[in-house]
Order: sequence, then C-alpha cells, then structure tokens
Amino acid sequence: MGDQGVVTAAAIIIGNEILSGRTRDANLPYIAERLAGWGIQLMEARVVPDIEDEIVGAVNALRAKFDYVLTSGGIGPTHDDITAASIAKAFDVPLDRHDEAVRRLQRHYERPEDLTEARLRMANVPRGGVLIDNPVSAAPGFQVENVFVLAGVPRIMQAMIDGLQGRMAGGRQMHAVSITCALPESILAPGLGEIQSDHPDVSIGSYPHFAAARSASRFGVSIVLRGLETTDVEAAADKVRDLMRSLGGTPEDRDLSTDKKAADHA
Amino acid sequence: MGDQGVVTAAAIIIGNEILSGRTRDANLPYIAERLAGWGIQLMEARVVPDIEDEIVGAVNALRAKFDYVLTSGGIGPTHDDITAASIAKAFDVPLDRHDEAVRRLQRHYERPEDLTEARLRMANVPRGGVLIDNPVSAAPGFQVENVFVLAGVPRIMQAMIDGLQGRMAGGRQMHAVSITCALPESILAPGLGEIQSDHPDVSIGSYPHFAAARSASRFGVSIVLRGLETTDVEAAADKVRDLMRSLGGTPEDRDLSTDKKAADHA
Repeated sequence: MGDQGVVTAAAIIIGNEILSGRTRDANLPYIAERLAGWGIQLMEARVVPDIEDEIVGAVNALRAKFDYVLTSGGIGPTHDDITAASIAKAFDVPLDRHDEAVRRLQRHYERPEDLTEARLRMANVPRGGVLIDNPVSAAPGFQVENVFVLAGVPRIMQAMIDGLQGRMAGGRQMHAVSITCALPESILAPGLGEIQSDHPDVSIGSYPHFAAARSASRFGVSIVLRGLETTDVEAAADKVRDLMRSLGGTPEDRDLSTDKKAADHA
Repeated sequence: MGDQGVVTAAAIIIGNEILSGRTRDANLPYIAERLAGWGIQLMEARVVPDIEDEIVGAVNALRAKFDYVLTSGGIGPTHDDITAASIAKAFDVPLDRHDEAVRRLQRHYERPEDLTEARLRMANVPRGGVLIDNPVSAAPGFQVENVFVLAGVPRIMQAMIDGLQGRMAGGRQMHAVSITCALPESILAPGLGEIQSDHPDVSIGSYPHFAAARSASRFGVSIVLRGLETTDVEAAADKVRDLMRSLGGTPEDRDLSTDKKAADHA
C-alpha cells in the first residue's frame, strides 16, 4: 500500500488477437470498473502478445511496481495458452499439476474420457499458486503472490474477478465528480489550470467531445475531478461550475456510468 | 526493420479516463487495424496515466524496442495535456513553439482574440518534431524520430493516422485465415498442437467462444492462422479444416471483419 492508503494495480491483457485488431478488448473496462469499486486504482495496462518472454517481462516489471497485477487470457487447453508456464517462469517456480484443479475438472467433465490431456493442461498451476474459482467452465484461474491470473473469455473473466472481492485489500475510495458543459475546453483552460494549482491533491481531467447528442453546440467538455478528500474534491468542483457559468456555460453534473456510455459512442 | 522484413510498432494510450473505467478506449482497435493494413505488426500496447514520468518511461522503453511508436491523447489546450512536454523530455530536447503549427491555428481561429494562450499551447512541439496534419480541428500532432504523437479524441486520431499512410515504411503483409466451427477447443487441442509443430512459421491462435448466434451448440472456436508465407499459411489452414472434419465439425471460413464484430458482443 502506497502513500495515503492508495492501493494500486496493473492489468496485462495477453493475446495476439487484440494486437492484430481482430478482437476488440472487452476486459480492460470491466477490470478498471471493478477495481475502482473496491478502492484499487488501476495505474497501467499492457496488451502483450502470446510470447513467453513478453509475458514474463511485463509480469515482472509490473508486480514489482504495483500492489496487484491482474492478467487476462492464455489459460485454455491449446498450444497457444502459455500464461501458466510464463507466470511460473516469472516467479522461477515449477509448473505443477494442481490436485484440486484436477478434481474440479473431473467434476465438470463427468465422463473420464472427456477429461483429455489437453483439458488437464488447464490444471497446471505454478507451485504455490492459489486457485481462483471459475463458476462458468470449471477450469480455474490462480493467484501467485500479488499476481491474479484470469481467463480471457469475457464471461469467464468477469465471473472470476467478481469472485475475487475481498481477496484484494482495497484502499481508500476515490471521490469523483464529473461536470459537463457545451463550451470548447480551451476557453476553460486558464481557469482550470488555476483551480488545479489551488487543489494539488485533486486530479482534474478535461475531456473534450464533439456533437454531444443533447446539445446544439458542436463542442463540449467533461471535467472529471478525483481525489481522496471529498471536501477538497467538492470545493474544486464548485469552482469548476462557477468557472463554466462565468463563461456563459451551463454546468451539468453527469452520472459517470452515463458518461461512459456516451464516450463509447464518441 | 527486423527479421524477414517484419516491421513492428507499439501503441501508448495516454489518459486517466481509460484506467478509471470512465471511458472505453476506441483508439487501440483502430490503430491495430490501420497498422496491419500497412504491413506493420502491433506488438505491444500500453495504457498509462497523465503522469510525465510514466509517459517518458513508456516512450523510451518502446521506441528502443520497436520500429515505430504511436501515442494517443494528451495534446489539447488544458493543464492535463502533458504529452508534448513528456515527449520532449523523453528525447531530451527543448519544447518549442512551432511556427507552422501557430500559422495553422491562426488560420483555424479567424479572430485573433480566439487564439488564446491556452490554444497556443497546442503549437508546442519538441525541437526537431515534424507536424502531423489534423484536418478536423487544426491543432497538429507531431513526429519525433520514430514516435508519432496523435490526438486522443477518436475522430481526430483517426483522421491523423489515416493521413500518415506512406510516412511509415510498411513491411511484408501477414497472410491471415480464420476458420470457425462449433466444437469445443479442447477437442482440437492435440491436433492443433501438431499442426503448429509442423508449421513453426505460422502463428496459430485458438479463440473459444460461447453461444455463437448461428449455432445450436453452446461451444465454438475460431482458429486464426497468420504468417508471412501464403502457401505455408494455406497448407496449415487445410490441415485445420481436415482436423475439424475428422472430429465431426463443419469448418467455416470467416471474414475477419465479421469475426471481429462477433467478438465485440461476446
């Protein structure tokens, strides 16, 4: 845990298919939202290919830097599923067949002949790893120290991360406020810079957009304020609303989930 | 340029809003597809926060490792737009006001009083930087050596990258084939592993999915084969189709763009 009780994390999305443009990643937004809800700040994300050295390098760089690392992808039964072996290499431990993982697969595949050698690969866990439940298709993820290894299929990844609640120690919740108005952001820039200087512990982000659906204006901007101290964030937010009004704008508080949907279609 | 004429790139998405879960990134898939079309392989992507040291670290790690680096985000007029200054620091050069960039902003903002000091920040370019056109809102991106700095707003980023065609030397095009069938991937796993061993220069990826819309089966899998040698890829693809048929499946070649849409909704 770092300064001021902030808990940090990084995500590693493993998979050639994201980098080739073939598949659009759906896991990073889910991970980001879940962690934020638990008071854990996602500080970096990396997308790496199905190459052992790349996975090992990313895991070792990020597990040393942040409180938690979550990986997604590469734990299935096929030859290109190399995450478990890569994590074992990153921690310099052997990759064992995990008894309890085998039992879970045995229960899932009722007929013994269905539990093929390929499927048994999904019970390979780096020594010392603790299983992560997979309520969808049995084959578990696992945790080694501060690294949590999850599936890549979104439905399974989501079920796995939901089950992790309480296994990662959350930190203090960030208080966040989002305010939008139909002004170009450059008009707000000098005033925003002053508010930022007066509130150094509040992170103030400015996100311009075009052609907001509910507005006749071509331009608009969302100002997002985040910080650990609610009173500090709200004081800065009041100044942002005053700034918008002084420039002829009409500040609207925006629900962050609504805001996100709007951004999806930007 | 690396082995066998392969040209590589990395992308850096700069912005707290992606990491907080507030905004879903729309730029990485676009960058990945454009680069693939130009024969450039995207090998890694990172999402980093609006923190100078993090941006500098990512830029310097990736520009040394890959042929090209593209960044997206943080080049607007507000206090949190720190990409230009961070790139200058990464290359250890001064951040200058760029005369041609100023002229472009002057033409865009017809009334001199509209070209405020905040907007003029968007003409700050690391020394030696070459401008990248912005046909949407004038404020240019820029290129320093092998690093291309683009806007974060998707419409502007897309216009900028489209205009870069020909400024990055493309490498050999990968030949790609995607084959889908309604079998669980674990049944294919041993055969796929053999095909992979027999075709070491073809990258064979296996992507399971659930509840395919056109299929009564709960399970399905897409096998994606990629490689530089068309005949090698097609020979391996024929073996994958034969493998699927031998296990009772019906292989269907899938258009990669259709495939991508399906994955979006997975």
